Amino acid sequence: MRIALLGGTGDIGEGLALRFARDTDHEILIGSRDPEKAREAVASYEAELEARGADADLNGFGNEMAADRADVAILSVPPYYAGDTVEAIDGSLDAETVLVTPAVGMNGDEDGMHYHPPGVGSVSELVAQRASDDVPVVGAYHNLAAGKLGDLDVEFDLDTLVVGDDTDAKATVTDLTNEIDGLRALDAGPLANAAEVESVTPLVINIAKYNDEMHDVGVKWI
Amino acid sequence: MRIALLGGTGDIGEGLALRFARDTDHEILIGSRDPEKAREAVASYEAELEARGADADLNGFGNEMAADRADVAILSVPPYYAGDTVEAIDGSLDAETVLVTPAVGMNGDEDGMHYHPPGVGSVSELVAQRASDDVPVVGAYHNLAAGKLGDLDVEFDLDTLVVGDDTDAKATVTDLTNEIDGLRALDAGPLANAAEVESVTPLVINIAKYNDEMHDVGVKWI
Repeated sequence: MRIALLGGTGDIGEGLALRFARDTDHEILIGSRDPEKAREAVASYEAELEARGADADLNGFGNEMAADRADVAILSVPPYYAGDTVEAIDGSLDAETVLVTPAVGMNGDEDGMHYHPPGVGSVSELVAQRASDDVPVVGAYHNLAAGKLGDLDVEFDLDTLVVGDDTDAKATVTDLTNEIDGLRALDAGPLANAAEVESVTPLVINIAKYNDEMHDVGVKWI
Repeated sequence: MRIALLGGTGDIGEGLALRFARDTDHEILIGSRDPEKAREAVASYEAELEARGADADLNGFGNEMAADRADVAILSVPPYYAGDTVEAIDGSLDAETVLVTPAVGMNGDEDGMHYHPPGVGSVSELVAQRASDDVPVVGAYHNLAAGKLGDLDVEFDLDTLVVGDDTDAKATVTDLTNEIDGLRALDAGPLANAAEVESVTPLVINIAKYNDEMHDVGVKWI
Protein backbone atom coordinates (compact mmCIF):
# COMPACT_ATOMS: atom_id res chain seq x y z
CA MET A 1 0.00 0.00 0.00
CA ARG A 2 1.15 3.56 -0.63
CA ILE A 3 0.90 5.90 2.36
CA ALA A 4 1.36 9.63 1.77
CA LEU A 5 2.26 12.03 4.56
CA LEU A 6 1.03 15.37 3.25
CA GLY A 7 2.85 18.05 5.18
CA GLY A 8 5.23 15.21 5.93
CA THR A 9 8.06 17.54 6.91
CA GLY A 10 6.37 18.52 10.20
CA ASP A 11 6.78 16.63 13.45
CA ILE A 12 3.81 14.25 13.32
CA GLY A 13 4.46 13.66 9.62
CA GLU A 14 8.10 12.86 10.32
CA GLY A 15 7.28 10.50 13.18
CA LEU A 16 4.64 8.59 11.22
CA ALA A 17 6.90 8.42 8.14
CA LEU A 18 9.81 6.99 10.14
CA ARG A 19 7.65 4.47 12.03
CA PHE A 20 5.73 3.31 8.93
CA ALA A 21 8.99 3.01 6.99
CA ARG A 22 10.75 1.07 9.73
CA ASP A 23 7.91 -1.18 10.90
CA THR A 24 5.94 -1.94 7.72
CA ASP A 25 6.52 -2.89 4.07
CA HIS A 26 4.42 -0.08 2.67
CA GLU A 27 5.76 2.55 0.31
CA ILE A 28 5.99 5.93 2.00
CA LEU A 29 5.41 9.17 0.09
CA ILE A 30 6.37 12.49 1.66
CA GLY A 31 4.33 15.43 0.41
CA SER A 32 5.00 19.12 0.85
CA ARG A 33 3.78 22.27 -0.85
CA ASP A 34 7.38 22.55 -2.08
CA PRO A 35 8.48 19.25 -3.72
CA GLU A 36 12.14 20.15 -3.09
CA LYS A 37 11.44 20.37 0.65
CA ALA A 38 9.77 16.96 0.49
CA ARG A 39 12.83 15.45 -1.20
CA GLU A 40 15.14 16.96 1.41
CA ALA A 41 12.99 15.44 4.16
CA VAL A 42 13.15 12.06 2.39
CA ALA A 43 16.96 12.24 2.33
CA SER A 44 17.06 13.02 6.02
CA TYR A 45 14.56 10.27 6.96
CA GLU A 46 16.40 7.73 4.80
CA ALA A 47 19.69 8.60 6.47
CA GLU A 48 18.12 8.12 9.88
CA LEU A 49 16.56 4.79 8.90
CA GLU A 50 19.71 3.48 7.22
CA ALA A 51 21.81 4.41 10.26
CA ARG A 52 19.60 1.99 12.18
CA GLY A 53 19.86 -0.74 9.59
CA ALA A 54 16.27 -0.29 8.44
CA ASP A 55 15.17 -0.52 4.82
CA ALA A 56 14.02 2.86 3.58
CA ASP A 57 11.53 3.12 0.71
CA LEU A 58 10.48 6.78 0.70
CA ASN A 59 9.85 9.29 -2.08
CA GLY A 60 9.18 13.03 -2.03
CA PHE A 61 6.60 14.94 -4.08
CA GLY A 62 4.39 17.99 -4.06
CA ASN A 63 1.29 17.38 -1.94
CA GLU A 64 -0.96 17.00 -4.97
CA MET A 65 1.17 14.35 -6.65
CA ALA A 66 1.72 12.50 -3.36
CA ALA A 67 -2.06 12.42 -2.81
CA ASP A 68 -2.64 11.26 -6.39
CA ARG A 69 -0.33 8.26 -5.94
CA ALA A 70 -1.50 7.33 -2.43
CA ASP A 71 -3.95 4.74 -1.18
CA VAL A 72 -3.97 6.49 2.20
CA ALA A 73 -3.18 10.21 2.46
CA ILE A 74 -2.47 11.58 5.93
CA LEU A 75 -3.05 15.31 6.19
CA SER A 76 -0.34 16.15 8.72
CA VAL A 77 -0.55 19.92 8.27
CA PRO A 78 -1.30 22.61 10.89
CA PRO A 79 -5.06 22.76 11.67
CA TYR A 80 -5.66 26.16 10.12
CA TYR A 81 -4.28 24.95 6.77
CA ALA A 82 -6.22 21.68 6.82
CA GLY A 83 -9.30 22.93 4.95
CA ASP A 84 -7.32 24.79 2.28
CA THR A 85 -4.93 21.88 1.77
CA VAL A 86 -7.88 19.56 1.20
CA GLU A 87 -9.26 21.89 -1.45
CA ALA A 88 -5.83 22.16 -3.09
CA ILE A 89 -5.45 18.38 -3.40
CA ASP A 90 -9.10 17.45 -3.86
CA GLY A 91 -8.61 16.79 -7.59
CA SER A 92 -6.07 14.08 -6.65
CA LEU A 93 -8.44 12.34 -4.25
CA ASP A 94 -11.21 9.89 -5.04
CA ALA A 95 -13.30 7.14 -3.45
CA GLU A 96 -10.24 4.82 -3.50
CA THR A 97 -8.04 7.17 -1.45
CA VAL A 98 -8.56 7.30 2.30
CA LEU A 99 -7.97 10.82 3.62
CA VAL A 100 -6.73 10.79 7.23
CA THR A 101 -6.81 13.90 9.42
CA PRO A 102 -4.82 14.21 12.67
CA ALA A 103 -5.20 18.02 13.05
CA VAL A 104 -6.72 19.69 16.12
CA GLY A 105 -7.80 23.30 16.64
CA MET A 106 -6.45 24.77 19.88
CA ASN A 107 -5.64 28.08 21.41
CA GLY A 108 -3.47 28.80 24.40
CA ASP A 109 -3.39 31.24 27.29
CA GLU A 110 -1.43 31.47 30.53
CA ASP A 111 -3.41 28.54 32.01
CA GLY A 112 -2.67 26.14 29.20
CA MET A 113 -4.10 24.92 25.90
CA HIS A 114 -7.82 24.85 25.21
CA TYR A 115 -9.79 22.98 22.59
CA HIS A 116 -10.99 25.37 19.93
CA PRO A 117 -12.91 23.51 17.22
CA PRO A 118 -14.12 25.08 13.99
CA GLY A 119 -17.82 25.94 13.78
CA VAL A 120 -18.68 22.63 12.14
CA GLY A 121 -17.73 20.86 15.41
CA SER A 122 -14.27 19.39 14.79
CA VAL A 123 -11.39 19.58 12.32
CA SER A 124 -12.23 16.02 11.22
CA GLU A 125 -15.74 17.11 10.21
CA LEU A 126 -14.34 20.24 8.54
CA VAL A 127 -12.00 18.11 6.42
CA ALA A 128 -14.90 15.83 5.45
CA GLN A 129 -16.96 18.86 4.49
CA ARG A 130 -14.21 20.36 2.32
CA ALA A 131 -13.32 17.10 0.52
CA SER A 132 -15.49 15.79 -2.33
CA ASP A 133 -18.40 13.68 -1.10
CA ASP A 134 -16.98 10.38 -2.35
CA VAL A 135 -13.64 10.72 -0.49
CA PRO A 136 -13.67 8.62 2.68
CA VAL A 137 -12.36 10.69 5.63
CA VAL A 138 -10.94 9.17 8.81
CA GLY A 139 -9.71 11.03 11.91
CA ALA A 140 -6.65 9.44 13.57
CA TYR A 141 -3.22 10.16 15.11
CA HIS A 142 -4.47 13.22 17.07
CA ASN A 143 -2.99 12.41 20.44
CA LEU A 144 0.37 10.88 19.72
CA ALA A 145 3.34 12.07 21.68
CA ALA A 146 5.23 13.68 18.78
CA GLY A 147 8.63 13.56 20.46
CA LYS A 148 8.34 9.86 21.25
CA LEU A 149 6.95 9.12 17.79
CA GLY A 150 9.83 10.85 16.00
CA ASP A 151 12.58 9.32 18.12
CA LEU A 152 13.16 5.79 16.86
CA ASP A 153 15.11 4.98 20.01
CA VAL A 154 11.91 5.23 22.03
CA GLU A 155 9.86 2.07 22.35
CA PHE A 156 6.35 3.06 23.28
CA ASP A 157 3.05 1.42 24.10
CA LEU A 158 0.43 3.96 23.04
CA ASP A 159 -3.08 4.14 21.66
CA THR A 160 -4.58 6.27 18.94
CA LEU A 161 -8.30 6.75 18.40
CA VAL A 162 -9.93 6.36 15.01
CA VAL A 163 -13.19 8.07 13.95
CA GLY A 164 -14.99 7.89 10.63
CA ASP A 165 -18.24 7.14 8.87
CA ASP A 166 -16.81 4.74 6.25
CA THR A 167 -16.33 1.28 7.77
CA ASP A 168 -13.84 0.05 5.16
CA ALA A 169 -11.72 3.19 5.36
CA LYS A 170 -11.64 2.94 9.13
CA ALA A 171 -10.60 -0.71 8.94
CA THR A 172 -7.77 0.20 6.53
CA VAL A 173 -6.42 2.88 8.87
CA THR A 174 -6.84 0.64 11.91
CA ASP A 175 -4.92 -2.22 10.28
CA LEU A 176 -2.13 0.07 9.08
CA THR A 177 -1.82 1.66 12.52
CA ASN A 178 -1.59 -1.69 14.27
CA GLU A 179 1.42 -2.53 12.05
CA ILE A 180 3.46 0.14 13.86
CA ASP A 181 5.26 -1.44 16.83
CA GLY A 182 3.67 -0.40 20.13
CA LEU A 183 0.79 1.52 18.59
CA ARG A 184 -2.81 0.34 18.96
CA ALA A 185 -5.80 1.79 17.10
CA LEU A 186 -9.12 1.95 18.94
CA ASP A 187 -12.49 2.84 17.43
CA ALA A 188 -14.12 5.98 18.82
CA GLY A 189 -17.14 5.83 16.50
CA PRO A 190 -18.29 8.05 13.63
CA LEU A 191 -16.97 11.50 12.66
CA ALA A 192 -19.68 13.00 14.89
CA ASN A 193 -17.59 11.78 17.86
CA ALA A 194 -14.39 13.51 16.68
CA ALA A 195 -14.59 16.52 19.02
CA GLU A 196 -14.03 14.42 22.14
CA VAL A 197 -11.06 12.71 20.45
CA GLU A 198 -9.49 15.97 19.29
CA SER A 199 -9.90 17.64 22.69
CA VAL A 200 -7.46 15.15 24.22
CA THR A 201 -4.64 16.96 22.38
CA PRO A 202 -4.73 20.21 24.42
CA LEU A 203 -5.16 18.03 27.51
CA VAL A 204 -1.94 16.07 26.95
CA ILE A 205 -0.12 19.37 26.45
CA ASN A 206 -1.54 20.62 29.77
CA ILE A 207 -0.50 17.41 31.54
CA ALA A 208 3.01 17.85 30.14
CA LYS A 209 3.06 21.47 31.36
CA TYR A 210 1.94 20.79 34.94
CA ASN A 211 3.72 17.53 35.81
CA ASP A 212 7.44 17.07 36.22
CA GLU A 213 9.08 14.52 33.97
CA MET A 214 6.06 14.25 31.66
CA HIS A 215 7.23 16.49 28.84
CA ASP A 216 5.90 14.36 26.01
CA VAL A 217 2.69 12.62 27.01
CA GLY A 218 0.70 9.95 25.19
CA VAL A 219 -2.28 7.93 26.28
CA LYS A 220 -3.32 4.34 26.87
CA TRP A 221 -7.00 3.44 27.33
CA ILE A 222 -7.28 0.52 29.74
CA MET B 1 -8.72 13.19 57.73
CA ARG B 2 -12.46 12.96 57.19
CA ILE B 3 -13.57 12.36 53.60
CA ALA B 4 -17.27 12.79 52.75
CA LEU B 5 -18.82 11.22 49.68
CA LEU B 6 -21.89 13.40 49.08
CA GLY B 7 -24.26 11.40 46.92
CA GLY B 8 -22.16 8.50 48.17
CA THR B 9 -24.79 5.93 47.25
CA GLY B 10 -24.13 6.32 43.48
CA ASP B 11 -21.54 4.31 41.57
CA ILE B 12 -18.55 6.67 41.71
CA GLY B 13 -19.36 7.48 45.36
CA GLU B 14 -19.51 3.78 46.20
CA GLY B 15 -16.25 2.99 44.42
CA LEU B 16 -14.34 5.85 46.06
CA ALA B 17 -15.83 5.03 49.49
CA LEU B 18 -14.78 1.38 49.23
CA ARG B 19 -11.28 2.17 47.95
CA PHE B 20 -10.61 4.95 50.48
CA ALA B 21 -11.93 2.73 53.30
CA ARG B 22 -9.84 -0.25 52.26
CA ASP B 23 -6.60 1.48 51.27
CA THR B 24 -6.32 4.41 53.72
CA ASP B 25 -6.77 5.18 57.41
CA HIS B 26 -9.12 8.10 56.81
CA GLU B 27 -12.64 8.27 58.21
CA ILE B 28 -15.23 7.92 55.46
CA LEU B 29 -18.58 9.72 55.65
CA ILE B 30 -21.38 8.75 53.28
CA GLY B 31 -23.81 11.56 52.53
CA SER B 32 -27.20 11.37 50.87
CA ARG B 33 -30.21 13.65 50.66
CA ASP B 34 -31.92 10.94 52.75
CA PRO B 35 -29.78 10.07 55.84
CA GLU B 36 -31.48 6.67 56.09
CA LYS B 37 -30.32 5.83 52.55
CA ALA B 38 -26.78 6.86 53.54
CA ARG B 39 -26.86 4.54 56.56
CA GLU B 40 -28.11 1.65 54.40
CA ALA B 41 -25.24 2.25 51.98
CA VAL B 42 -22.78 2.28 54.91
CA ALA B 43 -24.10 -1.10 56.11
CA SER B 44 -23.69 -2.54 52.60
CA TYR B 45 -20.16 -1.11 52.13
CA GLU B 46 -19.09 -2.31 55.60
CA ALA B 47 -20.35 -5.81 54.83
CA GLU B 48 -18.37 -5.83 51.60
CA LEU B 49 -15.20 -4.58 53.29
CA GLU B 50 -15.48 -6.96 56.25
CA ALA B 51 -16.02 -9.92 53.91
CA ARG B 52 -12.57 -9.08 52.54
CA GLY B 53 -11.02 -8.72 55.97
CA ALA B 54 -10.68 -4.93 55.64
CA ASP B 55 -11.29 -2.53 58.51
CA ALA B 56 -14.38 -0.44 57.85
CA ASP B 57 -14.77 2.99 59.45
CA LEU B 58 -17.76 4.52 57.66
CA ASN B 59 -20.69 6.62 58.86
CA GLY B 60 -23.85 7.79 57.10
CA PHE B 61 -25.45 11.25 57.30
CA GLY B 62 -27.55 13.70 55.37
CA ASN B 63 -25.41 15.56 52.81
CA GLU B 64 -25.33 18.74 54.87
CA MET B 65 -24.10 17.07 58.05
CA ALA B 66 -21.56 14.98 56.13
CA ALA B 67 -20.18 18.15 54.52
CA ASP B 68 -20.09 19.91 57.88
CA ARG B 69 -17.92 17.19 59.42
CA ALA B 70 -15.64 16.69 56.40
CA ASP B 71 -12.17 17.96 55.59
CA VAL B 72 -12.70 16.91 51.98
CA ALA B 73 -16.22 16.70 50.52
CA ILE B 74 -16.57 14.88 47.19
CA LEU B 75 -19.69 15.89 45.29
CA SER B 76 -20.47 12.57 43.62
CA VAL B 77 -23.95 13.55 42.44
CA PRO B 78 -25.31 13.60 38.86
CA PRO B 79 -24.10 16.70 36.97
CA TYR B 80 -27.46 18.39 36.76
CA TYR B 81 -27.84 18.29 40.55
CA ALA B 82 -24.29 19.51 41.22
CA GLY B 83 -25.09 23.24 41.37
CA ASP B 84 -28.19 22.80 43.54
CA THR B 85 -26.42 20.39 45.89
CA VAL B 86 -23.62 22.92 46.38
CA GLU B 87 -26.13 25.60 47.31
CA ALA B 88 -27.93 23.21 49.68
CA ILE B 89 -24.73 22.39 51.58
CA ASP B 90 -22.95 25.72 51.21
CA GLY B 91 -23.67 26.67 54.85
CA SER B 92 -21.69 23.58 55.91
CA LEU B 93 -18.66 24.46 53.79
CA ASP B 94 -15.86 26.89 54.58
CA ALA B 95 -12.27 27.68 53.70
CA GLU B 96 -11.12 24.58 55.61
CA THR B 97 -13.23 22.14 53.59
CA VAL B 98 -12.02 21.13 50.13
CA LEU B 99 -14.98 20.64 47.79
CA VAL B 100 -14.18 18.08 45.07
CA THR B 101 -16.28 17.78 41.91
CA PRO B 102 -16.13 14.73 39.60
CA ALA B 103 -19.34 15.51 37.63
CA VAL B 104 -19.43 15.93 33.84
CA GLY B 105 -22.22 17.25 31.61
CA MET B 106 -22.92 14.99 28.65
CA ASN B 107 -25.68 14.17 26.27
CA GLY B 108 -26.02 11.13 24.08
CA ASP B 109 -27.38 10.28 20.65
CA GLU B 110 -27.15 7.27 18.36
CA ASP B 111 -23.46 7.99 17.65
CA GLY B 112 -22.38 8.07 21.27
CA MET B 113 -21.87 10.49 24.14
CA HIS B 114 -20.92 14.11 23.60
CA TYR B 115 -19.46 16.64 25.99
CA HIS B 116 -22.11 19.17 26.96
CA PRO B 117 -20.68 21.68 29.44
CA PRO B 118 -22.74 24.32 31.22
CA GLY B 119 -22.50 27.87 29.90
CA VAL B 120 -19.75 28.78 32.36
CA GLY B 121 -17.43 26.32 30.55
CA SER B 122 -17.32 23.22 32.76
CA VAL B 123 -19.13 21.65 35.70
CA SER B 124 -16.00 22.28 37.81
CA GLU B 125 -16.26 26.01 37.16
CA LEU B 126 -20.03 25.92 37.78
CA VAL B 127 -19.46 24.32 41.18
CA ALA B 128 -16.85 26.96 42.03
CA GLN B 129 -19.28 29.69 40.99
CA ARG B 130 -22.13 28.32 43.11
CA ALA B 131 -20.01 27.72 46.25
CA SER B 132 -19.07 30.60 48.55
CA ASP B 133 -15.92 32.40 47.47
CA ASP B 134 -13.75 31.09 50.30
CA VAL B 135 -14.47 27.39 49.60
CA PRO B 136 -11.57 25.80 47.68
CA VAL B 137 -12.91 23.79 44.74
CA VAL B 138 -10.97 20.98 43.04
CA GLY B 139 -12.05 18.92 40.01
CA ALA B 140 -11.01 15.25 40.16
CA TYR B 141 -12.21 11.66 39.61
CA HIS B 142 -13.98 12.49 36.32
CA ASN B 143 -12.64 9.68 34.19
CA LEU B 144 -12.47 6.69 36.48
CA ALA B 145 -13.82 3.39 35.25
CA ALA B 146 -16.76 3.11 37.69
CA GLY B 147 -17.13 -0.64 37.34
CA LYS B 148 -13.45 -1.29 38.05
CA LEU B 149 -13.46 1.22 40.90
CA GLY B 150 -16.44 -0.37 42.65
CA ASP B 151 -15.21 -3.95 42.30
CA LEU B 152 -12.58 -4.52 44.98
CA ASP B 153 -11.47 -7.69 43.21
CA VAL B 154 -10.11 -5.56 40.38
CA GLU B 155 -6.54 -4.35 40.72
CA PHE B 156 -6.09 -1.39 38.43
CA ASP B 157 -3.37 1.00 37.34
CA LEU B 158 -5.22 4.19 36.42
CA ASP B 159 -4.76 7.93 36.44
CA THR B 160 -7.09 10.72 37.46
CA LEU B 161 -6.58 14.37 36.57
CA VAL B 162 -6.80 17.14 39.14
CA VAL B 163 -7.69 20.77 38.35
CA GLY B 164 -8.04 23.69 40.73
CA ASP B 165 -6.94 27.21 41.55
CA ASP B 166 -6.01 26.58 45.21
CA THR B 167 -2.58 24.98 45.43
CA ASP B 168 -3.01 23.59 48.96
CA ALA B 169 -6.43 22.10 48.19
CA LYS B 170 -5.04 20.47 45.04
CA ALA B 171 -2.12 19.03 47.01
CA THR B 172 -4.53 17.59 49.60
CA VAL B 173 -6.62 15.86 46.93
CA THR B 174 -3.52 14.68 45.07
CA ASP B 175 -2.02 13.14 48.21
CA LEU B 176 -5.30 11.44 49.20
CA THR B 177 -5.75 10.05 45.69
CA ASN B 178 -2.26 8.61 45.61
CA GLU B 179 -3.08 6.66 48.80
CA ILE B 180 -5.53 4.51 46.81
CA ASP B 181 -3.73 1.46 45.45
CA GLY B 182 -3.16 1.72 41.69
CA LEU B 183 -4.51 5.25 41.35
CA ARG B 184 -2.25 8.16 40.38
CA ALA B 185 -3.26 11.83 40.47
CA LEU B 186 -1.83 14.12 37.78
CA ASP B 187 -2.09 17.90 37.67
CA ALA B 188 -4.01 19.34 34.70
CA GLY B 189 -3.71 22.95 35.84
CA PRO B 190 -6.25 25.50 37.06
CA LEU B 191 -10.06 25.25 36.91
CA ALA B 192 -9.93 27.03 33.55
CA ASN B 193 -8.51 23.78 32.13
CA ALA B 194 -11.40 21.64 33.45
CA ALA B 195 -13.34 21.36 30.17
CA GLU B 196 -10.62 19.27 28.48
CA VAL B 197 -10.49 17.00 31.54
CA GLU B 198 -14.26 16.57 31.73
CA SER B 199 -14.59 15.84 28.01
CA VAL B 200 -12.59 12.64 28.44
CA THR B 201 -15.63 11.11 30.18
CA PRO B 202 -17.90 10.90 27.10
CA LEU B 203 -14.85 9.70 25.19
CA VAL B 204 -14.20 6.70 27.45
CA ILE B 205 -17.89 5.79 27.12
CA ASN B 206 -17.56 5.93 23.32
CA ILE B 207 -14.42 3.78 23.41
CA ALA B 208 -16.30 1.25 25.54
CA LYS B 209 -19.19 1.30 23.05
CA TYR B 210 -17.13 0.76 19.89
CA ASN B 211 -14.46 -1.70 21.00
CA ASP B 212 -15.02 -5.31 21.99
CA GLU B 213 -13.94 -6.29 25.47
CA MET B 214 -13.50 -2.67 26.61
CA HIS B 215 -16.76 -2.26 28.51
CA ASP B 216 -15.29 -0.27 31.40
CA VAL B 217 -12.46 1.96 30.24
CA GLY B 218 -10.03 4.04 32.27
CA VAL B 219 -6.97 5.98 31.20
CA LYS B 220 -3.23 6.10 31.79
CA TRP B 221 -1.19 9.10 30.61
CA ILE B 222 2.28 7.91 29.62
